[in-house]
Amino acid sequence: MYFLPLLYFDHNATTPVAPEVADALDGSVRQVWGNASSIHSAGQIARQQLEQARRTIASFLRAKATELVFTSGGTESNNIAILGLVRGFTAARKHIVTTTIEHPAVLEPCRQLEREGVEVSYVGAGRNGVVAVEAIRAAIRSETVLVSVMHANNETGVLQPVAAIGRLVRELREAGQTIYFHSDGVQAFGKVPVDLNADAIDLYSTSAHKIYAPKGVGALFVAKSVPLRGIQFGGRHERERRAGTENVPGAVAFARAVELCASYPASFIAGLRDRFEKQVGDALPDVQINGRSSPRLPNTSSVTFHGASGEGIVIALDLLGMAVSSGSACSSGSTEPSHVLLAMGLRREEARSSVRFSFGRYNTEPDVDALADSVIKTARRLRKSSAKEAHVVTG
Amino acid sequence: MYFLPLLYFDHNATTPVAPEVADALDGSVRQVWGNASSIHSAGQIARQQLEQARRTIASFLRAKATELVFTSGGTESNNIAILGLVRGFTAARKHIVTTTIEHPAVLEPCRQLEREGVEVSYVGAGRNGVVAVEAIRAAIRSETVLVSVMHANNETGVLQPVAAIGRLVRELREAGQTIYFHSDGVQAFGKVPVDLNADAIDLYSTSAHKIYAPKGVGALFVAKSVPLRGIQFGGRHERERRAGTENVPGAVAFARAVELCASYPASFIAGLRDRFEKQVGDALPDVQINGRSSPRLPNTSSVTFHGASGEGIVIALDLLGMAVSSGSACSSGSTEPSHVLLAMGLRREEARSSVRFSFGRYNTEPDVDALADSVIKTARRLRKSSAKEAHVVTG
Repeated sequence: MYFLPLLYFDHNATTPVAPEVADALDGSVRQVWGNASSIHSAGQIARQQLEQARRTIASFLRAKATELVFTSGGTESNNIAILGLVRGFTAARKHIVTTTIEHPAVLEPCRQLEREGVEVSYVGAGRNGVVAVEAIRAAIRSETVLVSVMHANNETGVLQPVAAIGRLVRELREAGQTIYFHSDGVQAFGKVPVDLNADAIDLYSTSAHKIYAPKGVGALFVAKSVPLRGIQFGGRHERERRAGTENVPGAVAFARAVELCASYPASFIAGLRDRFEKQVGDALPDVQINGRSSPRLPNTSSVTFHGASGEGIVIALDLLGMAVSSGSACSSGSTEPSHVLLAMGLRREEARSSVRFSFGRYNTEPDVDALADSVIKTARRLRKSSAKEAHVVTG
Repeated sequence: MYFLPLLYFDHNATTPVAPEVADALDGSVRQVWGNASSIHSAGQIARQQLEQARRTIASFLRAKATELVFTSGGTESNNIAILGLVRGFTAARKHIVTTTIEHPAVLEPCRQLEREGVEVSYVGAGRNGVVAVEAIRAAIRSETVLVSVMHANNETGVLQPVAAIGRLVRELREAGQTIYFHSDGVQAFGKVPVDLNADAIDLYSTSAHKIYAPKGVGALFVAKSVPLRGIQFGGRHERERRAGTENVPGAVAFARAVELCASYPASFIAGLRDRFEKQVGDALPDVQINGRSSPRLPNTSSVTFHGASGEGIVIALDLLGMAVSSGSACSSGSTEPSHVLLAMGLRREEARSSVRFSFGRYNTEPDVDALADSVIKTARRLRKSSAKEAHVVTG
């Protein structure tokens, strides 16, 4: 196999594994391979490492270790939260409020529940990419058992008002309604601070591979009071909320990645993003940066290049050794434009001419300058050829 | 952390990660961290490694690569097979036939389906540990959609007549019944040959960490004709049968472990087990080796030490640096005696005085001799003290 030089700006799809994390994984895989459910010493050493990892991650979330369930990743975390909670209620008490800008890992379990007879209300977002708290409030009914709103959108990076929604749901619960608040934190976790208690978030999904840890591991925070059933059944692992032999080295690597997050200030990455947006905006004044006026993740830039195909830009940049994406990796191969940008009110052609740039800790200013330069040249070239095509067609 | 010398004889709970596998995992984690669903080169390199791993494992099962779904492990494989298949049928066509000696990762999804209104028939095993094909045949009804019988039992190692059951189910299907055969292959895979096509197995569950690969990855074979829905929903990964970012390094490590299985002949491990059983049987002629008369996995020995507590033996051996178990790791902490041994007709005291020894590729003859010596001494000591206690109580 050959390795080509690669400038990577698709950190919302996945991140490279940090060398410190790869070392932690490798050490654990070679030395702490016991089954954490075994009663002998080999098992108990694994159990200790697992519980240490659980404490590290829980403390980063300002949560209790007993409230953290290890999973196989973000998709499973979201599925346990949504399916595991809602299936436990009787038919009469089943209504969910979520949004049209959620990730498929939230939307698809909701659609599955619709097939099972649950009603789901999908609240839209404004042109600024933000879901309004008032719209959530208006959608909640007396039979609503779950509100699920993501912490940060994966395509635009726009932060959602989870603290206000959390307070709203908590007030309803204090007034007697059995209702819980889930937030998909997969993109926000490790990039912006979160305080689950203060924000009154009852369920919070995370994934390791978005924060420089390996794939195949994630966690779901479940507040003590939440009556959660699992979605896969077997041994009594994870306090009977997630059956399956514990992936101890995965949890150890995840915890190491969480520890490292503190060493990489958000301001550094926000600086790279701002530098990129300024260069592109100066050269191509008509581009539109989606969600720019809203609070955003420090690392994400969603840019609409009117008159140039987003997929064309992705492919052209790839040939130049630069990785970016035209939407979520989980929707790649789909011919549909981004459901997130459409939900924000972009027209289909606008959504189709959009590209997501997501920066990371190993990016440098020269990398970003090279990216901006290539993006500007590529967009200009594609615009020219699409104008020519339009001329041929109409002329 | 300190590492103590450990003699490990609990390979059915989990295995150490083979150095070759740890190397493959480490290489992939550091270099092939792209999201296999990304369209850029970083994603496509990951996709290539994933599909190569899929081909390696499928070919070992004599299956097509398109029939293999990667999962987070054995429990998830069993849950997808059982829940994912049976939930797709209408209420009138829901009956399952399984056995009382299955692993909790099969029994618990079946119990979940019972809560959802599905009927389940549990067929027992004989004193020899074998489930009779005729008993399975007798339990099947016209509304049966699934027969699930494990390939090898995790506690006794006894092989089940899966080829005969597969033929039976295939005959029924050819006669017009919509019925499928699932086998939990978690303990058998890599230890005894399997030919899914010849044995007419429609769904087959495997787990990586039982064959010297890391935890957190497994696979489910699903024959092309099986109408399987997933149990977790999101992106369109794994041909829409298992949503979630693909754990590429996990799959690569699993495939490397599968390749290595061929280098370790079953006869070597069977030789260690026979050596152990002979020494223990010669010194303690009244011990009973469960399933001894039946075809068994080469590595597993389930021994009932009448008059000595199984858990006492496990703990005493642990203090001597030897890891064995009194049952499945997934049931550890439970005060109940083994459901498998009870199903075979052992009395509760017999089940409680049983220990599982499961040998592995890094065990040596001197290791096994040391184990046998310690087992014999420990059993004698515990028998004496339990006899004394009985004397105190009755005297």
